[in-house]
Amino acid sequence: MTDHISVPLSELHDRRRFLARASALTLAIPGVGAALTACSPSAPPSHTDTAHGTPQAATGGAAQGVNQPHNSDSRLDSAVLKGGPHGHTSATGTATQGAQSTTFHRFAPELPPLAPGGLLRLHWHAREAPVRIADDTVVAAWTFEGDVPGPIVHTRVGDTVEFTLTNDAVIPHSMDFHAAQINPQVAFRSVAKGQSVTFRFTPKYAGAFMYHCGTAPVLMHIGSGMFGAIIVSPREPLPAAREFVLVQNEFYLADAANGTRASDYQKMLNTLPDFVSFNGRPSQYVKEPIHVKRGDRVRFWVVSAGPSHPCNFHVVGEQFDTVYLGAPPGTPLRGVQTFSVPPGGGMVFDLVCDVAGEFPFVNHGFGHGQKGAIGILIVE
Amino acid sequence: MTDHISVPLSELHDRRRFLARASALTLAIPGVGAALTACSPSAPPSHTDTAHGTPQAATGGAAQGVNQPHNSDSRLDSAVLKGGPHGHTSATGTATQGAQSTTFHRFAPELPPLAPGGLLRLHWHAREAPVRIADDTVVAAWTFEGDVPGPIVHTRVGDTVEFTLTNDAVIPHSMDFHAAQINPQVAFRSVAKGQSVTFRFTPKYAGAFMYHCGTAPVLMHIGSGMFGAIIVSPREPLPAAREFVLVQNEFYLADAANGTRASDYQKMLNTLPDFVSFNGRPSQYVKEPIHVKRGDRVRFWVVSAGPSHPCNFHVVGEQFDTVYLGAPPGTPLRGVQTFSVPPGGGMVFDLVCDVAGEFPFVNHGFGHGQKGAIGILIVE
Amino acid sequence: MTDHISVPLSELHDRRRFLARASALTLAIPGVGAALTACSPSAPPSHTDTAHGTPQAATGGAAQGVNQPHNSDSRLDSAVLKGGPHGHTSATGTATQGAQSTTFHRFAPELPPLAPGGLLRLHWHAREAPVRIADDTVVAAWTFEGDVPGPIVHTRVGDTVEFTLTNDAVIPHSMDFHAAQINPQVAFRSVAKGQSVTFRFTPKYAGAFMYHCGTAPVLMHIGSGMFGAIIVSPREPLPAAREFVLVQNEFYLADAANGTRASDYQKMLNTLPDFVSFNGRPSQYVKEPIHVKRGDRVRFWVVSAGPSHPCNFHVVGEQFDTVYLGAPPGTPLRGVQTFSVPPGGGMVFDLVCDVAGEFPFVNHGFGHGQKGAIGILIVE
Repeated sequence: MTDHISVPLSELHDRRRFLARASALTLAIPGVGAALTACSPSAPPSHTDTAHGTPQAATGGAAQGVNQPHNSDSRLDSAVLKGGPHGHTSATGTATQGAQSTTFHRFAPELPPLAPGGLLRLHWHAREAPVRIADDTVVAAWTFEGDVPGPIVHTRVGDTVEFTLTNDAVIPHSMDFHAAQINPQVAFRSVAKGQSVTFRFTPKYAGAFMYHCGTAPVLMHIGSGMFGAIIVSPREPLPAAREFVLVQNEFYLADAANGTRASDYQKMLNTLPDFVSFNGRPSQYVKEPIHVKRGDRVRFWVVSAGPSHPCNFHVVGEQFDTVYLGAPPGTPLRGVQTFSVPPGGGMVFDLVCDVAGEFPFVNHGFGHGQKGAIGILIVE
Repeated sequence: MTDHISVPLSELHDRRRFLARASALTLAIPGVGAALTACSPSAPPSHTDTAHGTPQAATGGAAQGVNQPHNSDSRLDSAVLKGGPHGHTSATGTATQGAQSTTFHRFAPELPPLAPGGLLRLHWHAREAPVRIADDTVVAAWTFEGDVPGPIVHTRVGDTVEFTLTNDAVIPHSMDFHAAQINPQVAFRSVAKGQSVTFRFTPKYAGAFMYHCGTAPVLMHIGSGMFGAIIVSPREPLPAAREFVLVQNEFYLADAANGTRASDYQKMLNTLPDFVSFNGRPSQYVKEPIHVKRGDRVRFWVVSAGPSHPCNFHVVGEQFDTVYLGAPPGTPLRGVQTFSVPPGGGMVFDLVCDVAGEFPFVNHGFGHGQKGAIGILIVE
Repeated sequence: MTDHISVPLSELHDRRRFLARASALTLAIPGVGAALTACSPSAPPSHTDTAHGTPQAATGGAAQGVNQPHNSDSRLDSAVLKGGPHGHTSATGTATQGAQSTTFHRFAPELPPLAPGGLLRLHWHAREAPVRIADDTVVAAWTFEGDVPGPIVHTRVGDTVEFTLTNDAVIPHSMDFHAAQINPQVAFRSVAKGQSVTFRFTPKYAGAFMYHCGTAPVLMHIGSGMFGAIIVSPREPLPAAREFVLVQNEFYLADAANGTRASDYQKMLNTLPDFVSFNGRPSQYVKEPIHVKRGDRVRFWVVSAGPSHPCNFHVVGEQFDTVYLGAPPGTPLRGVQTFSVPPGGGMVFDLVCDVAGEFPFVNHGFGHGQKGAIGILIVE
């Protein structure tokens, strides 16, 4: 069922050695140095011990020596990793191809139905792709299935998810589901271009969970678009509701080049985003709101993908009937105006739409929220 | 009772169109561009479709075209919106008039008594005014009733608040009470100079709720001083206590000009404040502490107005007997040293003063707290 | 037993006067000015009213006048407080002596056993010392007992801690235990070089509490290394577990000089850290992981020392069986992926290790977490 039994122990030990040594080097070169280190190329795409972590190496050199990591998870090709004036970016592989013809589409926020039979089989591809996040902005994204965020996954406590990731990208990628209790060293391991990894898990807890690429540097992989939500419903259904999924993320973008803006690792480290969005497009639900009926209970499954900031979730003109900080239906909070979903976390927000009108939902940390983490809920 | 029945639907639709188009433009011009866009002037102070969102327009031009928002909520007059080296600021209208003669006063933190009869009628004015936040600092503020924060409102679950806002300022303003469940499109709509809006609401949940001007860009209106607290007591009284209200906010200020420092939108977007305060004056309760008696239960109703940062509330030398994350008395936490109140949120903190002494209360996120979010509670 | 009875009331009143006046001055000079003010020298090491708060004074002058604080808590010697191009730093006294010969050691994360007999007597020294936080990085630290963080303290609800601090450093220091309910004006007061303070307390609540130097400016003292964890177990034991203590902190460092990097107050005010670590060494538990057995319950007592950022605690491949936001065992959350521990706060995270493997634990706010707040838990 899973292929993780066949992973040689030597690779696992190498990985820990890498992490230890990468860590040491990162300490030596803070700031952009960390990016150079972590995104450094490893010339032969194999599990050898050769590695190149110096800034020189990043431009094609092959220096080796003490403190240069063997990065079996981030075997980047210096030919595709662009180090410009803004440092290293996501403009790799096919991330900028066809940008001009990429069309905008609204990301559907509706919670999809459960798969029948208790087994959800998913086979996704990691790939670089331009994604239009606004009429005039295309980002050079690293994606699951070509979009940012990746597809919404919906399963249930006790059901099974069988997941396969095939990597079509030039850079190694991986998948980390926060809904899984599993050995990440095996299931969440990075796979090189053309390779696949498969694993199964059975969620134990209900909730709004994040998934993301866990390949080092994780900041760069989340920040470049590789994240999404897996919603786990409890076996005892929650009160009937119109259910929506909102994944907040930040974009840190280099200046436009060839019609696209690449994600910029140095800006990510500086933690001041250019845009903040729900479901990958700033203000998309202002332009095309979410519609419900008066009397509906509305449930927002909110995930903060970050990579760095919380979502201080609030609905203007409404109050949350219930917020679940942990696995629903446990420990409900009642009568809440705003609650903070931490980066890498998820919470569930219920409200009862007794009043008709137009209700903006926002990140009430407005220094960030003003950059696009806003939408409108129309109660008809 | 309210005047919201008479609002023409066309205006409501215009508002959504505006938001959609403003959003698109904001995406095109990040950073200071967003400020220019959102604060852009709309030459005729009327509900027409003409609008001017380019930087050129902000200096007096009248360019029109695609992607320029019809901002029915932020009809700014370019004659009063100052775009200096720091970008756009709050130095509008009467915000700087009489600054030198403006005196410092301590903001009384005591929770005011409930209004008799179950009905609280408020008629407030939005106005620009200089506010002295320290002996040597006067800010050019946008205010409710001339002060920062606005007055503390105290009501009770099931009672009624009838609120009227009259706008005396040159820029449109509005009122958003987090304690209300109401159609914000109508009740919280922006009103132009000389106009008023009235609405009624009946709080459903107890708690420490924020109120603020909700006119776009909300970041600028909160950041310039238009916020405060509405405290909703439960109908079943909480344990008897000495009750105080603390509203944390950040100040983002341009350099002094004409004896005042204006709020600076670009600094707000950069999220690094100059001062952080409880009730609008950095360290005011260090200079003039809050006094209680040994044996008192003390209740702090804490609101984080932001606009961007949480309040990590802590009392040195004490521990919270109870913290209510949601509507009190639900879901109490016991034995807490520090809890984070999200921006746009509020929580309730009880402590029992068994020990006499001087107890500083702080935002324990000291990078911000050190900038003035500190006071002293004296237990006699 | 304690010496606080003998503190003259005049000193206490002076302290409040100081705070009030220091506060006023801090308002006048934001940014580095605040550092200059708060770290300003007070020439005679005595309780007189002479004080020197201007930038000139910091380089040896003796200006006096209105708005210059009497800082009985921060009587710094201008001969040792270095104001370089980066502003004021921790490179005082013996903080840089012997840096080259300082060796790296892993900080043991295991919760130490309880002291027998219900009384824990501690006599610690505050002192400046170089601390090697990585193979190539030595920081000029202000410490409790020579290390960053200070020693882990373990006590129990109802037991007694008798604590003495002797100050060996040139700058005044103090101790603030978040687990104590006590008059901080007396127990947590600053002591000058060569002096001591002793106090007793009996923790009322269980939890993971922070301790730190509370001498003004607190941001500088926490940011320079004076913090740690005091773990208070409940009298009714929690479920048996392997128990570990993780204290997250940020480092804000000036460029290397004489083989050390000093903590930089201006960088602290800018809130963008160079490193973020668990137990004072970035990524130390990646290099030397924490080991447990399959089937173990693992309990992390997590403290966010800050000084400014939360710890969004997450274990890759696992989910928390229980998170205690307040005093355990009260108000448990079940089934949590990530929860945010506020700066100055602490929470308790339980997980049940049903699966063998290597589980990274991280601050999932990766803009900060990527800077070293990562470790590995190996389940054998």
